[in-house]
Amino acid sequence: MGKVFTQASVSLDGYISGPGQTGFDRLFAWCTAGTVATPTADPDRLTYRTSEATARYLRELQERIGACVVGRNLFDLTAGWNGRHPSGVPVFVVTHRPPPAGWEATTTSFTFVSDGVENAIARAREVAGHRDVGVGPGGTVADALNAGLLDELRMDIVPVVLGAGTPMLTGLGDTAPIGFDPAEIIEGIGVTHLIYRRATQNLR
Amino acid sequence: MGKVFTQASVSLDGYISGPGQTGFDRLFAWCTAGTVATPTADPDRLTYRTSEATARYLRELQERIGACVVGRNLFDLTAGWNGRHPSGVPVFVVTHRPPPAGWEATTTSFTFVSDGVENAIARAREVAGHRDVGVGPGGTVADALNAGLLDELRMDIVPVVLGAGTPMLTGLGDTAPIGFDPAEIIEGIGVTHLIYRRATQNLR
Repeated sequence: MGKVFTQASVSLDGYISGPGQTGFDRLFAWCTAGTVATPTADPDRLTYRTSEATARYLRELQERIGACVVGRNLFDLTAGWNGRHPSGVPVFVVTHRPPPAGWEATTTSFTFVSDGVENAIARAREVAGHRDVGVGPGGTVADALNAGLLDELRMDIVPVVLGAGTPMLTGLGDTAPIGFDPAEIIEGIGVTHLIYRRATQNLR
Repeated sequence: MGKVFTQASVSLDGYISGPGQTGFDRLFAWCTAGTVATPTADPDRLTYRTSEATARYLRELQERIGACVVGRNLFDLTAGWNGRHPSGVPVFVVTHRPPPAGWEATTTSFTFVSDGVENAIARAREVAGHRDVGVGPGGTVADALNAGLLDELRMDIVPVVLGAGTPMLTGLGDTAPIGFDPAEIIEGIGVTHLIYRRATQNLR
């Protein structure tokens, strides 16, 4: 069975967006700061251009991901990625509301799950099989951590202080502190990729 | 002239202490997770035992530091380090209040500065000469960043999620976003040291 992970570009003060949905130019500058091309499933919209080390990190992710779980806020903020999630894999949207009027997925399968993140992850795992499930970013990450379901944190640390905004990790309640094992450090251009695995003594 | 830096052990979610001053066992576990000894100025209270790479990082800090600027909260929380700051260098305490009754520094010079962090840093710089000035951790770090006086961030990233507590970087107001240049990554045991220098295009 694959693992459940989250990945996010995060500022030095822990934000995945600045105040009022700002800061994305800084947070995602590393995605096009190099010369090695890594196409996404929607290469017209985004082809990464990075260092070779970052390209390897991205290719490994792309090869391993089998399904995604996202929150409704992110879905709405991105307008459902115009029906094409950049991962190219089936997406499970955790929501209590129906899809937007006229919603149509063009190239990715989207499933709206109304009974919580645990069930969304279970259904994503079924679809992903031996491959991995990506969760978040956003509130679904805390839900997955609180449920003891997150195996791996991937933080793309960007050298900017945003001062305020949306934290990568928030809303954890009584499950913290949660220990991780440092797994890997990959130095990119304008980014440091840190990979952590859930510490075995914390697994529930 | 030396540089002005801050250094802190910080959780994956950006906290230098957990809720209610907890989490220090996790945040400082790396200080004694190895075998290479690095004594502080108060070796009976703390001698670091780390990897060789972390020991080099700590020795470089010790050799370069010439003065410290700390906030009154930290001073009170540590009971003024019982009169012996572990750095062994002169300490400038930013405060509007007089020293505690009966206060006596035993081996480190402490100066109480009532006219703000900028003046405290200026006085610390004078004393430090060509050596560096350490600021914080705590609210003084934001004050120094807001004043454009912080040259370097040293984050000792610890693989734990604390969920809540005291952020390393908070209270920045309108000076954010603030860009940094990635300078160095040092992998230790249970810690990753990330060193960032203020980006030249941001210097004021």
